[in-house]
Amino acid sequence: MIVAMQGTATEVQIDAVIEAMTEAGLGVHRTTGSIQTILAGVGATASVDLGDFEQLPGVESVHRISSPYKLAGRGFRPEGTVVEFRNGVKIGDTEIVAMAGPCSVENRDQIFETAKRVKAAGGKFLRGGAFKPRSSPYAFQGLGIPGLELMREAADAHGLLVVSEVMEIAQIEPMLSLVDMFQVGARNMQNFNLLRQLGQVDKPVLLKRGIAATIEELLLASEYILQGGNYNVILCERGIRTFETATRNTMDIAAIPVVKKLSHLPIVADPSHGTGRRDMVAPLAKAAIAAGADAILVEVHPNADKAASDAAQTLYPDQFDKLMKELRVVAQAVGRTL
Amino acid sequence: MIVAMQGTATEVQIDAVIEAMTEAGLGVHRTTGSIQTILAGVGATASVDLGDFEQLPGVESVHRISSPYKLAGRGFRPEGTVVEFRNGVKIGDTEIVAMAGPCSVENRDQIFETAKRVKAAGGKFLRGGAFKPRSSPYAFQGLGIPGLELMREAADAHGLLVVSEVMEIAQIEPMLSLVDMFQVGARNMQNFNLLRQLGQVDKPVLLKRGIAATIEELLLASEYILQGGNYNVILCERGIRTFETATRNTMDIAAIPVVKKLSHLPIVADPSHGTGRRDMVAPLAKAAIAAGADAILVEVHPNADKAASDAAQTLYPDQFDKLMKELRVVAQAVGRTL
Amino acid sequence: MIVAMQGTATEVQIDAVIEAMTEAGLGVHRTTGSIQTILAGVGATASVDLGDFEQLPGVESVHRISSPYKLAGRGFRPEGTVVEFRNGVKIGDTEIVAMAGPCSVENRDQIFETAKRVKAAGGKFLRGGAFKPRSSPYAFQGLGIPGLELMREAADAHGLLVVSEVMEIAQIEPMLSLVDMFQVGARNMQNFNLLRQLGQVDKPVLLKRGIAATIEELLLASEYILQGGNYNVILCERGIRTFETATRNTMDIAAIPVVKKLSHLPIVADPSHGTGRRDMVAPLAKAAIAAGADAILVEVHPNADKAASDAAQTLYPDQFDKLMKELRVVAQAVGRTL
Amino acid sequence: MIVAMQGTATEVQIDAVIEAMTEAGLGVHRTTGSIQTILAGVGATASVDLGDFEQLPGVESVHRISSPYKLAGRGFRPEGTVVEFRNGVKIGDTEIVAMAGPCSVENRDQIFETAKRVKAAGGKFLRGGAFKPRSSPYAFQGLGIPGLELMREAADAHGLLVVSEVMEIAQIEPMLSLVDMFQVGARNMQNFNLLRQLGQVDKPVLLKRGIAATIEELLLASEYILQGGNYNVILCERGIRTFETATRNTMDIAAIPVVKKLSHLPIVADPSHGTGRRDMVAPLAKAAIAAGADAILVEVHPNADKAASDAAQTLYPDQFDKLMKELRVVAQAVGRTL
Repeated sequence: MIVAMQGTATEVQIDAVIEAMTEAGLGVHRTTGSIQTILAGVGATASVDLGDFEQLPGVESVHRISSPYKLAGRGFRPEGTVVEFRNGVKIGDTEIVAMAGPCSVENRDQIFETAKRVKAAGGKFLRGGAFKPRSSPYAFQGLGIPGLELMREAADAHGLLVVSEVMEIAQIEPMLSLVDMFQVGARNMQNFNLLRQLGQVDKPVLLKRGIAATIEELLLASEYILQGGNYNVILCERGIRTFETATRNTMDIAAIPVVKKLSHLPIVADPSHGTGRRDMVAPLAKAAIAAGADAILVEVHPNADKAASDAAQTLYPDQFDKLMKELRVVAQAVGRTL
Repeated sequence: MIVAMQGTATEVQIDAVIEAMTEAGLGVHRTTGSIQTILAGVGATASVDLGDFEQLPGVESVHRISSPYKLAGRGFRPEGTVVEFRNGVKIGDTEIVAMAGPCSVENRDQIFETAKRVKAAGGKFLRGGAFKPRSSPYAFQGLGIPGLELMREAADAHGLLVVSEVMEIAQIEPMLSLVDMFQVGARNMQNFNLLRQLGQVDKPVLLKRGIAATIEELLLASEYILQGGNYNVILCERGIRTFETATRNTMDIAAIPVVKKLSHLPIVADPSHGTGRRDMVAPLAKAAIAAGADAILVEVHPNADKAASDAAQTLYPDQFDKLMKELRVVAQAVGRTL
Repeated sequence: MIVAMQGTATEVQIDAVIEAMTEAGLGVHRTTGSIQTILAGVGATASVDLGDFEQLPGVESVHRISSPYKLAGRGFRPEGTVVEFRNGVKIGDTEIVAMAGPCSVENRDQIFETAKRVKAAGGKFLRGGAFKPRSSPYAFQGLGIPGLELMREAADAHGLLVVSEVMEIAQIEPMLSLVDMFQVGARNMQNFNLLRQLGQVDKPVLLKRGIAATIEELLLASEYILQGGNYNVILCERGIRTFETATRNTMDIAAIPVVKKLSHLPIVADPSHGTGRRDMVAPLAKAAIAAGADAILVEVHPNADKAASDAAQTLYPDQFDKLMKELRVVAQAVGRTL
Repeated sequence: MIVAMQGTATEVQIDAVIEAMTEAGLGVHRTTGSIQTILAGVGATASVDLGDFEQLPGVESVHRISSPYKLAGRGFRPEGTVVEFRNGVKIGDTEIVAMAGPCSVENRDQIFETAKRVKAAGGKFLRGGAFKPRSSPYAFQGLGIPGLELMREAADAHGLLVVSEVMEIAQIEPMLSLVDMFQVGARNMQNFNLLRQLGQVDKPVLLKRGIAATIEELLLASEYILQGGNYNVILCERGIRTFETATRNTMDIAAIPVVKKLSHLPIVADPSHGTGRRDMVAPLAKAAIAAGADAILVEVHPNADKAASDAAQTLYPDQFDKLMKELRVVAQAVGRTL
């Protein structure tokens, strides 16, 4: 951490800042320039809130110079993390993984038909929501655990893994035997109690970026899970909120290579939520893979137009087939398989 | 809801859209223009997802024409909601209410000293966090229930009400006897399970706007609480995330009169989080009151620079004294008291 | 400027960075810490592009520690700038100034009637566009110089000053005798050639903040004018673009006190463009004055609903009368007059 | 255009709105529903400002249902526009075109060396700035016309075309014989006078999206050029401003397929400005091509770290070589060549 003092700062003010830095557990190096004094704080800066220093008398500005996360940083595992599942499927390796399924589990036929088509197209994970966070209380809220049981059955019947969203701590226990990976939704990216609890669980976690979260905040959120000892965390870019309204969100494709550089964690792209438009899923899925994504997460439904939620962004199985064929070629173009 | 068909849409496509609208429970009025056909859907449009229609063949665009919330809308209570507390304090009435206190409860001395000063300056609520949601797992996380008990004691000793943040469902029960109002933080604005549970509670709820939430989404979130029968909801503008970095967030002052127009719920302004800078709290608090806010929420700490969290945006008690005097004059200028 | 080297940076890399800093004309102070080396560059950092250093081998991060503007900075004129006009009206002094008029000058009757009403209500400036920048080429584009001549005549008849937008260099000369202040619109805030030319002109300039411009960029833009020797620059907050759609733009009220702190230049608030809604002009105008604005800029039209442009955000003269009365009281509440 | 009246709107209010719509040149269809009345306006809606109706008494909301641009719309040229240059190079066809060069022309050696390397790697255009719009007046502002003459000479020596930014109307004439395509920078995207003038010019125009411009506004801006009869317009996605700071801008990759759908104009991707980071240029260039871009625009400099501007985002020639090889493979994967 660097504290730049104002040119007019007095020695008393400088001493007070040095004291505050020392109290915060930092070692302090002082550079007295002709224009201003610079104080460099070294040590456990990750636990320091820069704001604590910004308003001290005589301070001009405060800068963080090392990343505030530790376990999520690339330096912690320079070789990168590969998350391996019980059936040998790996995320973070050369092979790109496809996860697909409906926004919500609706009934037995729907989820079995989807599972069959996802498997046939080369997907490895069946995705689907049992607990649905909806902006409006008047919208369909999901089938709950019975929906999850249906999805488990459908996935097992077709040799797929299951990923589904957990919305609160109380759902972890009943979901534990039904899913292969917990998904934390964008709205819960900073539900720290939930994250901390998932750090105790022996199942991988797919952590979605919040629509207003910076990449740094996403990595800090992952740190809550890693800290508990669960190192099987997979990040997910699914669009951020901007002024543009042509797409539901703006997919931050650059987040993929940025995360790859800053962190050792795998990263998944979700072009369905990232764009909110069925006709934009294919071009953005290709873009994500070209940019280095380790997996894609796509919404597929046998009767997409009548899906109980997210109909506008859901592919028909035939469209998913076609997409997988196209993605396979793009994956090869960047030295990977799918 | 209006569905505008493309000029090239066929009768078969138009019929399919009419059928889909009918299935969604809407009555449909058709206008066949020389350029394009317009379908107006009437009825229970609040539960309809516009996206379900946007991708149907032949559709050009879909527009919502009535608000998706019901109980939160101004029409539900045109006269406006006034939330009354057990000691007669009212929010939403002519008198503007001040809520103040530290970001986190740290110890007995701190919270008692704060309570004394808040009361002396004319504050009605003691605010303070016992459970702290922090972006970094390495930052101070709060004292928990013991902290809340200290705050209750301090508030009672000085005739203040207590407002404190609830972070998960399991905390509602132990907090119930200790707070006069539950606060839902910005990060939890769309924690729908928590909101639904708070709809069952017989205590007012202060619902903070998420940093990436539109005003419409804030009102929809409040609807989750109202739907459960708890009509004592107070909204809070605390800054949204934009590209500007001079302040931590950008306070959307216009949200105050917009909410007043769209909804009957009272609205509070939080210039401490809204700006993240101690020197900006006073001008923004004045602005909020000039724009029609019903209350202000401000961070105050006897030793602000050493606060365990949010030091940069916390006022010293003397600054709060001065602010209250200034706000009183502004309140009078817009026909209110404080 | 501070360059933080990576912990793994070699001496060769550190030397290369020091050399690059020296070549850029900076003096360099080196702090060799146990974790990493910090290089502080002092001197003419305003002309240095931080990006030039970010990608050098071994560099972790680069931070600017002094503001990149000079003449616009508060330090240049700690007492603040007061811009005085030929009839003695001042902007930046205790008295708050109101500027009002139609979006576009349309015809003689319209502009004379507006001038009469603006004057009667206590306005000091007649505003109005002769050259209109419109997003669509199919929208009304303004009357040009003849419109400006009409506005000059109307203003003179009622003892008002004239402010109008200049859109390109070629318009400066013909406008010079017709306006008392040039306005640079938000879309032209970074039209640097135009700004540089206005630095040569002996008339004040009202510089509007771009919808995606940071406060720092606004101050840097003003620097282009100041550098030419024209120190009569007045800044204007008129809303920034965010994800919120309830108002056309999001008025960044905090920008007012932030500019007051960083710069000596006066600042005006434009709640008409800031909100795009007639019913939001009054609350935001009050908020802006409560937060410290030196002047307000408001759209008024005798037949607001039929204005050729910006009808939705334009006040009727009676509404402007009422607003001025209300603002007078708020101005007094913050120790000023209007 | 659709005007939805409030449920409580009176017949007098409805009639007034119908009259206003008729005056605006629209035909009006009325649907009187049980809940509210809907008015559909048909005709020349492109020239109508929705805001003109939003504040009329009794109006609930106003919606545009057809796009406000005409000539830029896909419908105008369903087969797509292919811009052909004098040497036969085409943009918008199957072959993807690479444009590369320094941010600024600095001297003869630099630009000749760059041209040689760009050509060798397979580039078709030499790009480079002679007039530089810089946020700070203290930064390097470009060599002007002599710089452009050098670039022309270098391009001719190596069989390349030239694209360079025009910043104001007065520069068009002297640039005309020196460039093969005019570039309009992001800051000038809404400099409508400049656009209109370029509509009169017999050279293609590369129009960059403003950092806060929606896709609709980009298309409307292109309409200013098209309207003048110059149909050779190429759009450019170069990043928008969001809250994320890990990259200089957030590249809106989805804008590429969205533009392809809405418009017939070709679209170029500029990953150098889109990310501001050299290490992100390659992944984003690949993503852009995978998503359907017709060309890429990249900054290359023989001594990238010492470039007079944009050093941080500029590639070394060897990096550009490698990038071109990788892009060729990605282009093939999506059925194109490069």
